[in-house]
Amino acid sequence: MIVPRLIERKREGGRIVEPEWDELIAAYSAGKVPDYQMSALLMAIYFRGMDRGETYALTDAMIQSGGQLELSHLTVARIDKHSTGGVGDKVSLILAPLIASLGVAVPMMSGRGLGHTGGTLDKLESIPGFRTNLTLAEAARQVESIGCALIGQTKEIAPADRKLYALRDATATVEAIPLIAASIMSKKLAEGLTGLVLDVKQGSGAFITDPDRAQKLARAMIELGADRGCPVVALTTAMDRPLGFACGNALEVKESIDALRGEGPDDLMEVTYALGAEMLILAGVAPDATAAWRRMRDAVTSGRALEKFVQIIEAQGGDARIVDDDDILPSAPKRAEFVSSRDGVVLEVAPRSVGHGVIALRGGRRTMEDKIEPSVGFTITAKPGDTVVRGQTLATIHALDDAGLREGNRALADAIRIGDGNAEALPLVSHKITADGVVRWSSPEA
Amino acid sequence: MIVPRLIERKREGGRIVEPEWDELIAAYSAGKVPDYQMSALLMAIYFRGMDRGETYALTDAMIQSGGQLELSHLTVARIDKHSTGGVGDKVSLILAPLIASLGVAVPMMSGRGLGHTGGTLDKLESIPGFRTNLTLAEAARQVESIGCALIGQTKEIAPADRKLYALRDATATVEAIPLIAASIMSKKLAEGLTGLVLDVKQGSGAFITDPDRAQKLARAMIELGADRGCPVVALTTAMDRPLGFACGNALEVKESIDALRGEGPDDLMEVTYALGAEMLILAGVAPDATAAWRRMRDAVTSGRALEKFVQIIEAQGGDARIVDDDDILPSAPKRAEFVSSRDGVVLEVAPRSVGHGVIALRGGRRTMEDKIEPSVGFTITAKPGDTVVRGQTLATIHALDDAGLREGNRALADAIRIGDGNAEALPLVSHKITADGVVRWSSPEA
Repeated sequence: MIVPRLIERKREGGRIVEPEWDELIAAYSAGKVPDYQMSALLMAIYFRGMDRGETYALTDAMIQSGGQLELSHLTVARIDKHSTGGVGDKVSLILAPLIASLGVAVPMMSGRGLGHTGGTLDKLESIPGFRTNLTLAEAARQVESIGCALIGQTKEIAPADRKLYALRDATATVEAIPLIAASIMSKKLAEGLTGLVLDVKQGSGAFITDPDRAQKLARAMIELGADRGCPVVALTTAMDRPLGFACGNALEVKESIDALRGEGPDDLMEVTYALGAEMLILAGVAPDATAAWRRMRDAVTSGRALEKFVQIIEAQGGDARIVDDDDILPSAPKRAEFVSSRDGVVLEVAPRSVGHGVIALRGGRRTMEDKIEPSVGFTITAKPGDTVVRGQTLATIHALDDAGLREGNRALADAIRIGDGNAEALPLVSHKITADGVVRWSSPEA
Repeated sequence: MIVPRLIERKREGGRIVEPEWDELIAAYSAGKVPDYQMSALLMAIYFRGMDRGETYALTDAMIQSGGQLELSHLTVARIDKHSTGGVGDKVSLILAPLIASLGVAVPMMSGRGLGHTGGTLDKLESIPGFRTNLTLAEAARQVESIGCALIGQTKEIAPADRKLYALRDATATVEAIPLIAASIMSKKLAEGLTGLVLDVKQGSGAFITDPDRAQKLARAMIELGADRGCPVVALTTAMDRPLGFACGNALEVKESIDALRGEGPDDLMEVTYALGAEMLILAGVAPDATAAWRRMRDAVTSGRALEKFVQIIEAQGGDARIVDDDDILPSAPKRAEFVSSRDGVVLEVAPRSVGHGVIALRGGRRTMEDKIEPSVGFTITAKPGDTVVRGQTLATIHALDDAGLREGNRALADAIRIGDGNAEALPLVSHKITADGVVRWSSPEA
């Protein structure tokens, strides 16, 4: 393998074959291929793409660079959900215990906040004592005993992906669709899944705002799953406004507990159930969406979903009293209401402005070294299309101090647009994408 | 300056402005921008290109990274010639003394063999004692005293280009036209020239075989010169067969001495005079090509051109007796004739096969560490279009041993095609390219 010749071939639109990917990624992991050659190759891939076989080979080579969750001895289905990332998106916190409470193993690997979006790991760590850095062996034991573990990408899983991702971040090569697909799937497939549900966010607050590109990414991940015998189903969901009311780490944990009690905001519940139904169908636990929704509502009403959350928190060292006692979760010392400056209609609640507002309140990171303040954020009850009057409360700001309240106020003034006329909003869940194609999604309860 | 944002901008087809280039190249030279970011940027440039202003800014930043030949106090014109590289191309060895003997300063910076082509420095070093590694100060003094110095790219000149070139070589980003133009011109413009003549090779033995790309490169270099007040004129010349007869380091020095006596092969003399005329016209020493050719023929006939070569050899520590005594130049212990296997017409003498043959004889490098054997090579007297009979000598092989003779025979059998019909050959000199456009070239003696 002469690396400059591989780069040249890709640059000219040729393909790199599977044994070459294996050798390249192994050599790169071992420090025998320098970063400067890999980054040139990544940029060539940005322009030339990779075909299905190449994307598979890269993904497989990255999986082989590390260990995997050993769950193949389990007889139950093992299903995870992945979201392309959004603001107020606490669906993972709800789905993991909910689906596990229905007898499906949920080995869930999540990330930290990235850009304007929050991260599941950061949210979980606002629960006092909660450990997300389980080893693969610990996570496997926990999945075996209580059906769910909520972990981060350990150093054991796809270390080549970690190294490549850091390089992509430093060289403006993050955005290539096949590289994104390979990166996500190398981690997900290392969980030993029997199925995966993707939440592909659309709209101004999504990482990929172009719907065509978002669908391309979904298809690439579906193909990667199919080629490894792991069926993947994707739903496209709305990220032109925050999901639910709460935006901020502890606030979102609190809202997730409400949701597990059946008291979550309607939009959050609909997206959660839509994704959960696909998980249950993939698991073979429900024959169709109607049955799946009924089972999920039962699990919530009966308290079993929340009970599973308690089990998970306790298994991972967290203080499970948070589900009953609001005073245990971190709460911000300063609160203020954000009110409407006029009569009118809520035309927009821009997720990026909200997300950047959470960061301004120190609820997210500007650099990888920043420490997160879990208590801060927003509770935004106004939704696009709502008719409001001057002085009406649209949101609550949770901040560390008065300066934070002012920052939060500025962010909301930027995010929330009140005017005349009709708000334009994307359907909460619009399409379902499978290996068979794209179909319009409709609620089984509509 | 946030480097990933610069890379991203170039990736999306945007431009990097002059102060950004200055900062980037200075930081890269200082080791503050890592190779992996630079190589990603180079690959993005490969796909997106650079406009005239960007190419200028990069070139200027690379010149500023090092020192320059201080010749601005000279009242005479300072003209160099650059060739894009070929096989049997010893024109520099002839032109430098010839043009210097006519009162023009020729500060000539040359390179080593690259790929299938030979390098002027390697050829000069087959002269016993000849030093090419002059310092900038030494070279400037020599140009001042005898009008010419033949040097390599010292560590003092455009060190950023050296570093970038090595990176490009390792990352398959050599071929981008604006990067090639900036690299060549950063070195040439550091010579303090008042004019530059380019020999743009065309045909199967050229580095750039596509005529459109070759012309693009010429135009990019002409623009770079114009933007720095250094007029550049390019001639496109034939490299679909070797130039002259000799291919191999000492053999080419010998043929250059013959040429300086007026006894060089016709094709070599025509290309040499064509390029030399442009140098003399740029220098203001001759009003037109007719006058220039006359002056060059005079310099050769009078012996002044060869006398200048003697001065240069002596100034650079070489044994100038080579011009009179053939036994001083290294000569190969084994020789054999290569004869035609049939009656017919010489349809092709493929320069790449010849060039690779010289390397096989150890007259060129396979790796940068290889030591060159100066004596070996070919004298190929057969030219495309020649009618030949079976058993007629087409070439002489000069080798170290019998194995070398066999290698040389294989290479020539591969390179020289005898058949029926007519040979197709490019015109020796086809076009002249200036800032004003492209015109067909014609010999003043035709």
